[in-house]
Amino acid sequence: MQIAFEQAAAAAQRGEVPVGAALVRDGVVLAADGNRVEELRDPSAHAEMLVIRAAAQAGNGRLEGCDLYVTLEPCPMCAAVISLAKLRRVYFGAYDPKSGGVEHGPKVFDHSTCHHRPEVYGGMDENRAAELLRAFFRERR
Amino acid sequence: MQIAFEQAAAAAQRGEVPVGAALVRDGVVLAADGNRVEELRDPSAHAEMLVIRAAAQAGNGRLEGCDLYVTLEPCPMCAAVISLAKLRRVYFGAYDPKSGGVEHGPKVFDHSTCHHRPEVYGGMDENRAAELLRAFFRERR
Repeated sequence: MQIAFEQAAAAAQRGEVPVGAALVRDGVVLAADGNRVEELRDPSAHAEMLVIRAAAQAGNGRLEGCDLYVTLEPCPMCAAVISLAKLRRVYFGAYDPKSGGVEHGPKVFDHSTCHHRPEVYGGMDENRAAELLRAFFRERR
Repeated sequence: MQIAFEQAAAAAQRGEVPVGAALVRDGVVLAADGNRVEELRDPSAHAEMLVIRAAAQAGNGRLEGCDLYVTLEPCPMCAAVISLAKLRRVYFGAYDPKSGGVEHGPKVFDHSTCHHRPEVYGGMDENRAAELLRAFFRERR
């Protein structure tokens, strides 16, 4: 989770919404990145999507047994790609009532059409994650 | 829609699940592609995701006013990225009760946390789209 926080802080430095993620298997960090939506001009370039894509391409496309650490509750897009990638566990920081897709809104894992459900642990170091986002948006207003 | 069908057929030739998509603005095709999950070793490489990413990167990241044509009902990941990309309309072929995310499962556009809802037109040349998929899976069994 520490690595995810560092990536979130780095994203803020780049002027991106500060969300960071790390993908880990057997104690090895396979990929770590932060949000790059603006830099890559890619609406899908959320931190979670970037680490899943990087680790899948570096490996053989299979991410079973991998755990994702991310500073914010994944949005519906990221929740769905987590399921497609068959990740084992998701640890996330702040809850996101406005745009989250795990515990809020479409609750992507909570449907019979979701063919793989990871274990989910929310609220990890929640205040730190939320404060990063609050500080970012406070500066921009 | 014809272009999307051609892309779906090309995907089948590559051994990919045959889904194709085209992204259009003002009558101009900005991007067309088919599913490349196996080839790219990328669980996110659905046809819709690939055309949105390509068109966004080629442009300035903005896809407002764009319409997506896709041969199958988008999954939750693709529905969510369609919303993030603020596409104007989605025309899809076959309904997907097993894995769809627009009319089935999490119904991504049907929540107050969905900040942009495209117009959606399902069932376009539905039988042709479904037959492509059926033929593909029949051969593989």
